[in-house]
Amino acid sequence: MGDIPARIRVIEMGPREGFQMEPAMIATERKVELIEALAESGLGTVECASFVNPKVVPVMADAEQTVAAIRRKPGVRYTALWLNERGLRRAIATGKVDIQGFLALNASEAFVARNTGMTLDKEADEQHRWLETYKECGVPVESAGIGSAFGCNFQGDVPISKVVEQVGRIRDIAASHGETLKRVNIADTMSWGTPQSVKRVIGAVRERFPELGIGLHLHNTRGMAMANAYAGLEMGADEFDTSVAGLGGCPFAGHKGAAGNLCTEDFVMMCEEMGIQSGVDLERLIEAARLAERIVGRNLPGAVMKGGSLSGLRNRRQ
Amino acid sequence: MGDIPARIRVIEMGPREGFQMEPAMIATERKVELIEALAESGLGTVECASFVNPKVVPVMADAEQTVAAIRRKPGVRYTALWLNERGLRRAIATGKVDIQGFLALNASEAFVARNTGMTLDKEADEQHRWLETYKECGVPVESAGIGSAFGCNFQGDVPISKVVEQVGRIRDIAASHGETLKRVNIADTMSWGTPQSVKRVIGAVRERFPELGIGLHLHNTRGMAMANAYAGLEMGADEFDTSVAGLGGCPFAGHKGAAGNLCTEDFVMMCEEMGIQSGVDLERLIEAARLAERIVGRNLPGAVMKGGSLSGLRNRRQ
Repeated sequence: MGDIPARIRVIEMGPREGFQMEPAMIATERKVELIEALAESGLGTVECASFVNPKVVPVMADAEQTVAAIRRKPGVRYTALWLNERGLRRAIATGKVDIQGFLALNASEAFVARNTGMTLDKEADEQHRWLETYKECGVPVESAGIGSAFGCNFQGDVPISKVVEQVGRIRDIAASHGETLKRVNIADTMSWGTPQSVKRVIGAVRERFPELGIGLHLHNTRGMAMANAYAGLEMGADEFDTSVAGLGGCPFAGHKGAAGNLCTEDFVMMCEEMGIQSGVDLERLIEAARLAERIVGRNLPGAVMKGGSLSGLRNRRQ
Repeated sequence: MGDIPARIRVIEMGPREGFQMEPAMIATERKVELIEALAESGLGTVECASFVNPKVVPVMADAEQTVAAIRRKPGVRYTALWLNERGLRRAIATGKVDIQGFLALNASEAFVARNTGMTLDKEADEQHRWLETYKECGVPVESAGIGSAFGCNFQGDVPISKVVEQVGRIRDIAASHGETLKRVNIADTMSWGTPQSVKRVIGAVRERFPELGIGLHLHNTRGMAMANAYAGLEMGADEFDTSVAGLGGCPFAGHKGAAGNLCTEDFVMMCEEMGIQSGVDLERLIEAARLAERIVGRNLPGAVMKGGSLSGLRNRRQ
């Protein structure tokens, strides 16, 4: 278990990636309440909003109001998503978002074609433009994501060599603009990963790029998010995107089948039990998970929020 | 990944351990329908009923009728649970149950005291009586279970040395009656296991008793069942108790919090994707999981039955 990190960073995605999947509008003050509860639990980064077209994603139309209303806790990073320059400039204009430059390539050509109409080459070209924009805005770039890294509903399996190639490609693109990538986030966008493929992909990336930290973005559509996270920990991944209570699934999962992200509090408990520091107060996080359930008004998939934490059980015995 | 087995056995617990948790009665013919669908999917062992006091577990009052009605598929073992000699004799009398002698100790003294009013010593004494009874009935004994092996709601953490001690104890008890144990089933009765403790416990047991095969009985109360199963596979465990669709949870999980067993089809898919043979036809198994949902009349926690199997996605692309 030599590669298991002593300390990890948990990037909370619930208020952004989770709420984005919700069919109903969510009041700004409820979003803010959850974001504040998550920050109070000790999470170091909370993704708060998407600065995207409100006609396409109405639930994110109040991105500006959301980030403006947050009572900020010192030391916490309040991040956001944007998909184009307009979104980035909206986020910057708030003065309330911890702007982090982020580059992104995919490993599946078919997914990119379907999703954006681009080729992988065109997607790479776009990253040059992003680097210029970030430079113009004074935003440093330290990390990049590789999407559809473990497989793709449209392409099927994705070769590990393609993931390694794309990591090298984005690293070189960043370098050509004078930026040095510090970490890469490997995303199982369509929930194709298994513990074995997680190990193999991370192993191959680390072998080739030992200087890069490894993050994982996992979904639980096929029930393997936690097993994949564990496999990632075993391979030294030390940054994990998660959603409180497992938010992010389709509320009509019985029919449509999209499950949420790796559940924050379940993952934090697993880490806590294995002696891996996350800096999070698990009981406060569980309260935040219950708040998330109240906000969306239905049961969410998180397990520890129902079954109770082991530290809680130990304490009650004393 | 050297210890990962090439082939595993999946022991289906849904019709017994799963249905036993159901608050409502389930018609015998519906149970039989599910048992037959599970056997048709390629599962080699299906636990069909509990021969227990019908006043205590009314949903199992039709144990005799259930096993009598099954249209048996050659090669499949149709097993059952009993908790006392009367139950064993009822199961034998049907002539329809594949009787397997089974011994059981726990690793948590507090759990045994709470659950049965016995001490661990008394529980061990009982196993001598079971061995005599099995001999009298002509039933061979090849395996034993160690319950509450990873922790206990009443005792807290359980030392690994205690699990190893109990494995040795039950092996010696069996040997004193001329029986040679071939495998031990390590049960995470109260869902305290983590991938790390699963590895440590199995490692310690295998180190001391290399001749014993290792089975795991896992629950998902804290969201770690699949990660724990993966950790078990990494340590060479090759027999897993599972429940179709993740049956076995409390239907009021939002309040009471008991989640079900490791989900059969999610686990089978993980194994299939990692090249581990289980002999199961995943698509037929998913159909059985959907049948289980129709029978209990509510959503069950299985993920692959909603998200679709990867082999299914690959096939649809062709």
